[in-house]
Amino acid sequence: MSGPHEGTETGQGPVYERVALIGLGLIASSMYWAMQRAGLAGEVMGYARSAETRQTAREIGLCDRVCESMSEAVEGADLVMLCVPVGGMGQVAEEIAPHLKPGATVSDVGSVKRAVIRAVKPHIPDGVHFIPAHPLAGTEQSGPRAGFATLFENRWCILVPLEETDPEALSRLRALWEGMGAHVDEMDADHHDLVLAVTSHAPHLIAYTMVGVADDLGRVTDSEVVKYSAAGFRDFTRIAASDPTMWRDVFLSNKDATLEILGRFTEELFALQRAIRQGDGDHLHEYFTRTRAIRRGIIEAGQDTPAPDFGRAGKSK
Amino acid sequence: MSGPHEGTETGQGPVYERVALIGLGLIASSMYWAMQRAGLAGEVMGYARSAETRQTAREIGLCDRVCESMSEAVEGADLVMLCVPVGGMGQVAEEIAPHLKPGATVSDVGSVKRAVIRAVKPHIPDGVHFIPAHPLAGTEQSGPRAGFATLFENRWCILVPLEETDPEALSRLRALWEGMGAHVDEMDADHHDLVLAVTSHAPHLIAYTMVGVADDLGRVTDSEVVKYSAAGFRDFTRIAASDPTMWRDVFLSNKDATLEILGRFTEELFALQRAIRQGDGDHLHEYFTRTRAIRRGIIEAGQDTPAPDFGRAGKSK
Repeated sequence: MSGPHEGTETGQGPVYERVALIGLGLIASSMYWAMQRAGLAGEVMGYARSAETRQTAREIGLCDRVCESMSEAVEGADLVMLCVPVGGMGQVAEEIAPHLKPGATVSDVGSVKRAVIRAVKPHIPDGVHFIPAHPLAGTEQSGPRAGFATLFENRWCILVPLEETDPEALSRLRALWEGMGAHVDEMDADHHDLVLAVTSHAPHLIAYTMVGVADDLGRVTDSEVVKYSAAGFRDFTRIAASDPTMWRDVFLSNKDATLEILGRFTEELFALQRAIRQGDGDHLHEYFTRTRAIRRGIIEAGQDTPAPDFGRAGKSK
Repeated sequence: MSGPHEGTETGQGPVYERVALIGLGLIASSMYWAMQRAGLAGEVMGYARSAETRQTAREIGLCDRVCESMSEAVEGADLVMLCVPVGGMGQVAEEIAPHLKPGATVSDVGSVKRAVIRAVKPHIPDGVHFIPAHPLAGTEQSGPRAGFATLFENRWCILVPLEETDPEALSRLRALWEGMGAHVDEMDADHHDLVLAVTSHAPHLIAYTMVGVADDLGRVTDSEVVKYSAAGFRDFTRIAASDPTMWRDVFLSNKDATLEILGRFTEELFALQRAIRQGDGDHLHEYFTRTRAIRRGIIEAGQDTPAPDFGRAGKSK
């Protein structure tokens, strides 16, 4: 390989001369800090639709320059990252299309991939690469102040190359994510959306639902729910505190896979409810023993630590 | 007040001269280390039905003496703590009844209270106090090696006094739990079981179910589920790794409240599924905004920290 990203993998120079971040929330701000720390970008332009967000970004030094228009931000950029909610991707793509530099790469960080491809691809001009991506990283915080440089470290980033994707553009994008500390995988869009429905989208909807039920229940007060949350519920509230707009878009745009998984979930839940009603202890014990093994797999895979966590707040002393 | 627990609240002497722990799992072992650290018990006898557990306890110095029989353990004890799964409480109470010292207190740490009262109370001899209790603390680990002295710090312990409960015996038990670092609340058994169904039992069943669904799904491999678990699923697996026997007993013995909450949950989940199917983004957004507020309440109540958690493993570097 040669060109501006020569020697990238060994950290000897920027992977892209100029990067544009469209949308300045948790992911984009984390990308900026991560790229800056590792010297992965020559310069980074930022843009957000909200004037308040742009103001905040300037105050905290987020991006080398915060632009007043999308066209200004993408002009001359070698990489344009779409970091807006999934439902807004299509419109952003349409607006930036006339201003994209030939040979540039457009990518995104959306949590669903089929819908993003459907919305964005038609707007991508000839001579511009489009490589959808999804970093599996985040917190329950959102906004430009939420980012931090290590968000992607040891997290997965899934690249979803299209049939026509240029191998060199792909390996450059991979180098960027690896430079930010992520492990990179490739997957097709359909499979991505199904895997994420299982590991992320359905769990989020379920957590939102359980938190809503607790809030609704007149006979148990909100303050009781809050007070005794350490008994298991707390982990649900953390998930259910995620950004509402982002998640609305995720469910609407990964409708089929999410509904399929929720259907399976409801079926299983009914079977367990029946076991409880009938007093079938063996069925319950067997089921719970099986799920325990999955947890062990996750610890062995390094996606979490074996340290007990329920007592977290109490042990920090 | 006078007697052996004089000056307890200021840490000047043991609250109980002799304590017996029946069952030597996570809770009992944590109690032992916590009592030892704070000097809350003159001496602590331990018993577990399994010879292997008794052997482990002796190896790690758990309890001042590990007894070979239940009767030996409770003999002369001022406090007998039943730390066995809820389903086993009745039988233990029956076995120890003839050996209880007059004036002693029997308490327990079970996650449901109506069923425990129903099973234990008939066996309690006249002149012995019975005060059900439930420390809201635990981890996904179990067994005699899982305990640690700070498990109860800043956690709630709910005492469920009966109508006839002696006030002095109650305040002594309260002093013990406070000495181990817990905040103590009192509640009647019905309300306890409902509150816990919301904050703990239903969330656990739901987490078990979702983890089971992920495992069942042929089209997404287990290794994919494990690999990408940080996207939200990981928090479910932590919950679903809890002790199978304990949880089987919890669901079977808090059947009515758990089924009621699960019914409400299913109803809400169906409403959200319909909103997804119909593309009703406003409904989803509104719902998710509301659940976010509950999370803020939990942080303000000190039951969790605002530090972002999803990126945990990645940030430990």
